[in-house]
Amino acid sequence: MFTLYYATHTCSLASHIALLDAGAPYELKRIDFGKKEQQSPAYLAVNPKGRVPAMVTPRGILTETPAMLAFIAQSFPDARLAPVNDPFAFAELQSFNSYLCSVLHVAHAHRMRGYRWADEPSSFADMQRKAPQSVGACFDLIESRMLKGPWVMGDSYTVADPYLFTLAQWLEDDGVDPARIPQVMAHRSRMAEWPNVKKAIAEEFAD
Amino acid sequence: MFTLYYATHTCSLASHIALLDAGAPYELKRIDFGKKEQQSPAYLAVNPKGRVPAMVTPRGILTETPAMLAFIAQSFPDARLAPVNDPFAFAELQSFNSYLCSVLHVAHAHRMRGYRWADEPSSFADMQRKAPQSVGACFDLIESRMLKGPWVMGDSYTVADPYLFTLAQWLEDDGVDPARIPQVMAHRSRMAEWPNVKKAIAEEFAD
Repeated sequence: MFTLYYATHTCSLASHIALLDAGAPYELKRIDFGKKEQQSPAYLAVNPKGRVPAMVTPRGILTETPAMLAFIAQSFPDARLAPVNDPFAFAELQSFNSYLCSVLHVAHAHRMRGYRWADEPSSFADMQRKAPQSVGACFDLIESRMLKGPWVMGDSYTVADPYLFTLAQWLEDDGVDPARIPQVMAHRSRMAEWPNVKKAIAEEFAD
Repeated sequence: MFTLYYATHTCSLASHIALLDAGAPYELKRIDFGKKEQQSPAYLAVNPKGRVPAMVTPRGILTETPAMLAFIAQSFPDARLAPVNDPFAFAELQSFNSYLCSVLHVAHAHRMRGYRWADEPSSFADMQRKAPQSVGACFDLIESRMLKGPWVMGDSYTVADPYLFTLAQWLEDDGVDPARIPQVMAHRSRMAEWPNVKKAIAEEFAD
């Protein structure tokens, strides 16, 4: 049994969908960012980083979405969520996920969490103004060079698909024009119809 | 044969050391950031992201340090650079590397590359002032909760060790007081004596 600590409207949705795709047994624990529960002593004992997601496993606690997605795929190989026996293909998948984590998600975070890297309100406003450009550049690259289609890695659905879907939820709020990234938008629409995606979103808001 | 595109004083050093640790056949190609070669058409054809590292393999090109490190470890299992047959232990290693990539390296980048996320000189100055705090918080967490010792993951050397060593090179320039992170500093000193580390650094500056 896994316990996934999540918050609504965050990247934890990717791991949640992957758990459903894997057929893994799991329970959810919601962290309410509005109440700053991610900074509570109880949650910091689970994840001292004070962020989501975190996942309790029988072996210990895991954090960081790319690591968790690879773990889910490797732990449930029958679900075929990653090319776990092909180091190069697995690395291509991991490269995609690492880019989402360290470049796209980071660019997005500057719109609302500039306090991580600066102190002045004028800097936060500057970062907010820049988000359409910085986030947009990431999606342009994903559109033109990275998204193979129909799934992220080509013909096979992988854990990269729920991750891209999750971050693509936010692009309009970041000021990115959907019209310039038709393949990303088609992927998002297709994912939105995926039963496990609907189930994961319903669970997060019902919990 | 692998071809590693690198630049001096960048995170590409981690993959370079890992290639040596793996006993992998490789050649180096230096990208001169002073000449903005990372934005040249020739290099953008290799890596459209315009960053280093990038590694040409017989199967194709890989980017993103966490993915490359896992690939090197999985491709040369006899070198025992990662617990490749234990998904949980492998995920712990990947979680560490993902944190370095998406949190520590990102915090560091704000000291010199604020233009990625903002436009105003006042914002860049603000980010530079914040770097000791944001980078320092990462190293505090690594020191207190993440670095198991003597190696990052405990008794066994892994690809996380050259990655931490590489990013720890920059902490004084980021304004972090080494006295507050004695285990990180001891790890850095031990790594600096590692023959493959000395060889990698010598190769990068001789090239």
